[in-house]
Amino acid sequence: MGLMDASQKPHDRLAAWLADDMAAVNVLIRQRMASEHAPRIPEVTAHLVEAGGKRLRPMLTLAAARLCGYEGENHVKLAATVEFIHTATLLHDDVVDESQRRRGRPTANLLWDNKSSVLVGDYLFARSFQLMVETDSLRVMDILANASAVIAEGEVLQLTAAQDLATTETIYLNVVRGKTAALFAAATEVGAVIAGVPEVQVQALRDYGDALGIAFQIVDDLLDYGGTDAAIGKNTGDDFRERKLTLPVIKAVARADAEERAFWVRVIEQGEQREGDLAHAKALMAKHGAMEAARAEAIAWIGKARAALAVLPEHPLRGMLDDLADYVVARIA
Amino acid sequence: MGLMDASQKPHDRLAAWLADDMAAVNVLIRQRMASEHAPRIPEVTAHLVEAGGKRLRPMLTLAAARLCGYEGENHVKLAATVEFIHTATLLHDDVVDESQRRRGRPTANLLWDNKSSVLVGDYLFARSFQLMVETDSLRVMDILANASAVIAEGEVLQLTAAQDLATTETIYLNVVRGKTAALFAAATEVGAVIAGVPEVQVQALRDYGDALGIAFQIVDDLLDYGGTDAAIGKNTGDDFRERKLTLPVIKAVARADAEERAFWVRVIEQGEQREGDLAHAKALMAKHGAMEAARAEAIAWIGKARAALAVLPEHPLRGMLDDLADYVVARIA
Repeated sequence: MGLMDASQKPHDRLAAWLADDMAAVNVLIRQRMASEHAPRIPEVTAHLVEAGGKRLRPMLTLAAARLCGYEGENHVKLAATVEFIHTATLLHDDVVDESQRRRGRPTANLLWDNKSSVLVGDYLFARSFQLMVETDSLRVMDILANASAVIAEGEVLQLTAAQDLATTETIYLNVVRGKTAALFAAATEVGAVIAGVPEVQVQALRDYGDALGIAFQIVDDLLDYGGTDAAIGKNTGDDFRERKLTLPVIKAVARADAEERAFWVRVIEQGEQREGDLAHAKALMAKHGAMEAARAEAIAWIGKARAALAVLPEHPLRGMLDDLADYVVARIA
Repeated sequence: MGLMDASQKPHDRLAAWLADDMAAVNVLIRQRMASEHAPRIPEVTAHLVEAGGKRLRPMLTLAAARLCGYEGENHVKLAATVEFIHTATLLHDDVVDESQRRRGRPTANLLWDNKSSVLVGDYLFARSFQLMVETDSLRVMDILANASAVIAEGEVLQLTAAQDLATTETIYLNVVRGKTAALFAAATEVGAVIAGVPEVQVQALRDYGDALGIAFQIVDDLLDYGGTDAAIGKNTGDDFRERKLTLPVIKAVARADAEERAFWVRVIEQGEQREGDLAHAKALMAKHGAMEAARAEAIAWIGKARAALAVLPEHPLRGMLDDLADYVVARIA
């Protein structure tokens, strides 16, 4: 286990504490992304896996398991499972969004083609499934099967809600639960389940992951209008160009006067975007305090995440998960 | 259980015998393709599921389970699982192949868009996973997880082997095992597994599904050069236009003289296809007996499928599976 240094970022302290486990996860990921017959598979996967993602989801599984006193080996398999599911959804997302950059690099759909991204994503999803079967836990499989369904449903919902100004904050929350919170919640829950802790602690870690995931996605959506390209590793304004109804847009639309509404209809519903429209959209959000209101919601979810931790045993990892929650919103401080 | 009529096609006799089970499968499929939040999901799924596919794979699971004396309810869940996996792969295949027709109707990627096909496919894959978890059988999950990985690997292999004249018959067999035989074999194997029959019978039903699937795909690939559009429900010549190295092409290329090889390099490797090229390709296959040779291989696999049935108990369904094997190659009689 690594050193403790209060000046480190919470994510780095978690990574240091879980360094041995994460090393085992990385070895397993590398083993299982291989393919006997199709070398394209590890090529595409390595491009994404080795781009230096934060490995936040597998770390949540490891942290939950260790915090619950787990001493076995299955947490490593489940952490790799969670990262494979995440990587599979990224590959498919980038096809659906026609994205060009991810983690600061060109996307796989750009470097290879959409076909490879679709099929390699399918392969990783199947591999994740093989890994979780190896844990011999029907409950773990049930949790991850349900999460997979919610993820896909959220993505379809996002697709049909895009370009639709009638999208409500309730629909947005369903989308966010699907695209982000479902896997965060499953990641922490399965860690608790394999440790065999009481149900109240399983539920607490599930609630922590859910609330953390929702806050994380709201922050991500805010950064798409406020961050710099370098800070988020992808292009800012992508959501605007893809006409996605994210929380700050929904809030600005709800407060729009007739003239502003005509603007949103043109750029989001009709997709007629001209130079200066992104800047104007940001100005409208600022005028109505939409960014501030969305930020307040993210902070409220972080409060729920931290409160959920209260029923868990005293443990250095509990403190790190607590700090991690704060850190998620610190990105938009 | 339905009536027996020797004049019926084997597929129809199986359907009649398994009518009650198949009705239960169809009810379950309809229930589970629903989505609380995203109506696009059942729309896209219904388009494909209700287009009147042959339901061959779920029928194989039901037949295997009943032939092995199974009296429970899980065979219905597994049959729906297998059909969902199949439907998910069709949705993704049509995106990858840029297909326009499937089962005699426009494809989902054409009616909606590629995005919907990718994400609804993911949803069905997750739903299949939820269904199989409900059977509480780790062995069943292991079989279907492995099949899913082999399917995706076969699809990637097909993608990278396309346009490559160096593709061998061994590579073709790996592609075919992935794209078709893996799910046929898993479909029959899980039926035997839930029935709890001795290993030798589980293996026999797996071998039957594997050999039947390989023969089925070889026949499909032959029909793409020989069938009429109406007979196969999709456009003939699709494989040629997509520059796929299927068995008759591989055999014709292997026997090509220098001038013929230049033709194959142009149309397959370089993708420069002109009017009359498909007809010329067919003429070259005929000249070298490539269609006949591929047909002989399909018949040999059917022999293996039928031989595998020998260790199974006497049962009307055994006879129907035997006849079904013959019927698969009768399409190219």
